[in-house]
Amino acid sequence: MRKGERTRTLILNEAMSLASRVGLEGLSIGSLAERLEMSKSGLFAHFGSKEELQLLTLKQTQTLFREQVFSPALTAPRGLPRLRALFSHWLTWLEHDLPGGCVMLAASTEYDDRPGPVRDLLVAGQRELRGAIAKAIRLAIDERHLAAQTDPWQLAFELLGIVLAAHHDRRLLGDTRSIARARDAFERLLEAHRAAAIA
Amino acid sequence: MRKGERTRTLILNEAMSLASRVGLEGLSIGSLAERLEMSKSGLFAHFGSKEELQLLTLKQTQTLFREQVFSPALTAPRGLPRLRALFSHWLTWLEHDLPGGCVMLAASTEYDDRPGPVRDLLVAGQRELRGAIAKAIRLAIDERHLAAQTDPWQLAFELLGIVLAAHHDRRLLGDTRSIARARDAFERLLEAHRAAAIA
Repeated sequence: MRKGERTRTLILNEAMSLASRVGLEGLSIGSLAERLEMSKSGLFAHFGSKEELQLLTLKQTQTLFREQVFSPALTAPRGLPRLRALFSHWLTWLEHDLPGGCVMLAASTEYDDRPGPVRDLLVAGQRELRGAIAKAIRLAIDERHLAAQTDPWQLAFELLGIVLAAHHDRRLLGDTRSIARARDAFERLLEAHRAAAIA
Repeated sequence: MRKGERTRTLILNEAMSLASRVGLEGLSIGSLAERLEMSKSGLFAHFGSKEELQLLTLKQTQTLFREQVFSPALTAPRGLPRLRALFSHWLTWLEHDLPGGCVMLAASTEYDDRPGPVRDLLVAGQRELRGAIAKAIRLAIDERHLAAQTDPWQLAFELLGIVLAAHHDRRLLGDTRSIARARDAFERLLEAHRAAAIA
């Protein structure tokens, strides 16, 4: 990595951390410059506008999510083991990654009424994630780990719900049991779809 | 209602509508004055500060939620009918109430890292809501509509997840099936806890 790229990555990591606390919309070149003890003009050399900074910060977060959640799950055997790995890494992401919670989940309510390139990138990422989960579920059906009548999109929707509830309770209510609750909910949900397979 | 109160209520309704789009944090006396075609100083006479405006707007939303979700559910017979009514009114709230989605759900990610009176009021409201759902579940257990081993707090957590997923998909992804998915998820969840009661 060249020095310019390295600096940019360092800046984006700090931007992710800041965005996790104040939201992507709250991210500004001024506040980021202050945290990095850099000049605003120095930052402008890397990011021409606030919107470009927001877009690159979101992209960096999506890349990190792929590296920490998707990629390791792909090494697990297809079917339930992979679906479990995906869900488990996702919870670990919520628990350990950024100081102020998941940038993408926060952005989901921030940008639902703000059309533009940031929203478009966010939506594309959320659709990609949902597709990947639905695919993992479909493979679990093909492997006969889950019942044939399981609807992959419905189950993917319910898995997102569990993650959102864990994020909500952990971040807003400071409930340390939320991750355990999410794991319980997930296992019971799988059980319901497996039991049906046997019946 | 006196004229002063009436004006205040009108202002707060407009503030709720604005907050549903830009978030409580994005709410400002300036932008609200513009929408209402009032002077900023006229608005300041009603709300001494941005924080007071945010607090009163949130309080008004919580009151509306109680009136539209809680209160009508209490007229349904205790047990499953009441729990179903609560969930159903909650989804109707998401679907029809405010142009930009639920103020409280959006505020949940907005304020998870912003300590202060707005966050405190929001947390108090979310805890009250969770308690009411857990109570409705407990009554359904007492009525033997749900299995004795059902954990009211776990099930209440899972119900919140379904609502959050519906809000996410409807608002961010523009998915019109999300409310139907939420109803399906809810019914299957109840079924799992009822089946256990019979077994």
